[in-house]
Amino acid sequence: MKIKRVTVTPIAFRDPPLLNASGIHEPYALRSIIEVESDNGYVGLGESYGDAPALAIQMAIKDQLPGLDPFNLNGLRQIVASTVARHKPASVSGAELAPGSHASKAVTNAYSAFEVALLDLQARSLNRPLVDLLGGAVRDEVPFSAYLFFKYAEHVDSPYPADNWGEALNEEQIVAQARRMIEQYGFKSIKLKAGTLEPEREVACILALKKAFPDHPLRIDPNGNWSLETSIRMAELLGDSLQYYEDPCPGLDDMAELHKRTGLPLATNMVVTDFAEFRRSVERNSVQIVLADHHYWGGLRDTQVLASMCHTWGLGVSMHSNSHLGISLMAMAHVAASVPNLDYACDTHYPWQEPDEEVIKGGKLPIVDGCVKINKTPGLGLELDRDQLGMLHEQFLRCGIRSRDDVRQMAKYKPDWKAVKPRF
Amino acid sequence: MKIKRVTVTPIAFRDPPLLNASGIHEPYALRSIIEVESDNGYVGLGESYGDAPALAIQMAIKDQLPGLDPFNLNGLRQIVASTVARHKPASVSGAELAPGSHASKAVTNAYSAFEVALLDLQARSLNRPLVDLLGGAVRDEVPFSAYLFFKYAEHVDSPYPADNWGEALNEEQIVAQARRMIEQYGFKSIKLKAGTLEPEREVACILALKKAFPDHPLRIDPNGNWSLETSIRMAELLGDSLQYYEDPCPGLDDMAELHKRTGLPLATNMVVTDFAEFRRSVERNSVQIVLADHHYWGGLRDTQVLASMCHTWGLGVSMHSNSHLGISLMAMAHVAASVPNLDYACDTHYPWQEPDEEVIKGGKLPIVDGCVKINKTPGLGLELDRDQLGMLHEQFLRCGIRSRDDVRQMAKYKPDWKAVKPRF
Repeated sequence: MKIKRVTVTPIAFRDPPLLNASGIHEPYALRSIIEVESDNGYVGLGESYGDAPALAIQMAIKDQLPGLDPFNLNGLRQIVASTVARHKPASVSGAELAPGSHASKAVTNAYSAFEVALLDLQARSLNRPLVDLLGGAVRDEVPFSAYLFFKYAEHVDSPYPADNWGEALNEEQIVAQARRMIEQYGFKSIKLKAGTLEPEREVACILALKKAFPDHPLRIDPNGNWSLETSIRMAELLGDSLQYYEDPCPGLDDMAELHKRTGLPLATNMVVTDFAEFRRSVERNSVQIVLADHHYWGGLRDTQVLASMCHTWGLGVSMHSNSHLGISLMAMAHVAASVPNLDYACDTHYPWQEPDEEVIKGGKLPIVDGCVKINKTPGLGLELDRDQLGMLHEQFLRCGIRSRDDVRQMAKYKPDWKAVKPRF
Repeated sequence: MKIKRVTVTPIAFRDPPLLNASGIHEPYALRSIIEVESDNGYVGLGESYGDAPALAIQMAIKDQLPGLDPFNLNGLRQIVASTVARHKPASVSGAELAPGSHASKAVTNAYSAFEVALLDLQARSLNRPLVDLLGGAVRDEVPFSAYLFFKYAEHVDSPYPADNWGEALNEEQIVAQARRMIEQYGFKSIKLKAGTLEPEREVACILALKKAFPDHPLRIDPNGNWSLETSIRMAELLGDSLQYYEDPCPGLDDMAELHKRTGLPLATNMVVTDFAEFRRSVERNSVQIVLADHHYWGGLRDTQVLASMCHTWGLGVSMHSNSHLGISLMAMAHVAASVPNLDYACDTHYPWQEPDEEVIKGGKLPIVDGCVKINKTPGLGLELDRDQLGMLHEQFLRCGIRSRDDVRQMAKYKPDWKAVKPRF
């Protein structure tokens, strides 16, 4: 079996005006959809970053893949490494919330983009679910958390009609958002994206959530936008409300100091984003939970390596997410299903994506009782809806966004907005 | 595809009177040969420890495997863990040179025994070489080193005619042993098993080897039988003769101190034998090279995890070996072929095994230019020679040895011989 053809299609889908540490989501999120076709008629699917630098690398790689055995992942890694070395990609400005867009992650993120598609192709050719190539499923469904955001009611300049979630800028609105999300999807734990309002207001929202959902473990994620001092002060206000405290302050040293001072379990997808940072983190005891993300950790197999390393160092494992569609969700679910020490419900932005913009046949994947059931049909068990793919690609061409920039977007609302870290 | 039948056959094969830190090899080495048959007619092979405690666990596991999907390695792990928990195996006395025989390794060694057979079975059913399930080969042939031993001319009580290697107890005899081994197999590097004669005599052998083979990297392995002080003193005599200094003294702390005092790269298969020890080792900078061994590191996939961890911590990777036959050698070669950062030629006892006692069809695997070529036929590419298997099993039944004990064996030569560590 050899690879015959590879297609990389950039797409754009509507993304709500969600607030975060950098600013606010732009009206469209970018992804790439990867199709790898073998000479015996199977197609493997992948989904990855659609920002210009990531896309340029993916485009440069795709034409080198025909002729490669889809089982030859080491061969893929060599092609990716040499391509990235030639391209010397730049970082996307303002993309620090999407670690996969950092130039330093160019190899791991491009490798992952194709590794998932190759594993999907392998598994389809074997008539087996992808998880079987990862050692088999230790669970058939993977828990996710309700991922709450502070948000505006609609985007600046109204590029399209407002979403139906409405504004969320205070306790009542956040509790309502949580209630709707839990009613609709059955989530058993809650994460609040923070680092955007005054810290005390955000903590007040956690306390309100704790009162409204006393049995739901809670997390707050200020995306490194609080200073060490602010993080300590907020820890005192938060008391024992949290399951874990995610990336309150930036940097391995401040996180280590925060843990020493508060004893709170700290989680991260910002200070431990590759194996070198993992090493530095365990030397300092900076974090107690690592949020894996196969998109920038180098694929599904390396996410398993990360989970093994977390086991060795006694760290918890959970999963990070950016705005994504169903291929990414099912890939996350398959690798999460294979990891024995998945200790926490994973993050996903999936509920924020509109039902009419899924790229796979059958529309959005169901989340029931807070869980995604892994497909047991061959590979990831997904087929592309070509009409949707065409429509979302048209939207990419039309939307004008080529690199995520939440800072630039916020400046449209607040002209003097700047990237400051930590802001509070 | 389901597992239909599993067979575990203990075998014994002749082992020369090789000296080591514990004492001397017994006249027979024990292994188990594992056959896992699927309901669609494929058979996967494995080779593991044949000592009584390991064998008891393997026997207890084998009957629980029918019905399991051979791709369900996580399911295998659960069966192994629960079986070991019920059996609470004892350590083999005097087996500290074979880490897989330690009770603490019962799960990883039993898991590995069957994991290799299941991966072989998977690959055969896919009509692909096993290495394809490990990400593909980055090299087609794997380098091994000439593994020299001090030895007597023959075993006490002459259980069978003497081997044709003769005695090796001084510089001339060791250089002659090296010359023969290099001429026959083309090895490009040399390892001397030490910890048995007076340290100065062993160092004199290294210096003689350096003179005779100036282009062959050299290693000495006293198996933790030298004190820290002796290790430092010998390091001065050794000067810059070594590629690496393997397990001169016991314990992570003394190894760390030795490295600090001498700056020499230290290798180990004794102080880093599982992931918990890896963690403690990197905290102390105890060693710079880890000798992997899939038999006790938990199989081929976990050997890849170990190699990834070595990459993260900047440690070198090589491979350890006990007395073994061709199935183990080919499994080592497949995983070594898949590991990009295999930095050193691997160890193997294989040249010490007699050509009439291989258990696979076609007899002993060739080692050419110091390398083992990985088979590209399905799985490990090996078939059992059932006559040989029967003969070696008969030999197991007859030989009377049930657990390796190099101390007890040495006491037959020297009645006051005791286990002392470090001896020098």
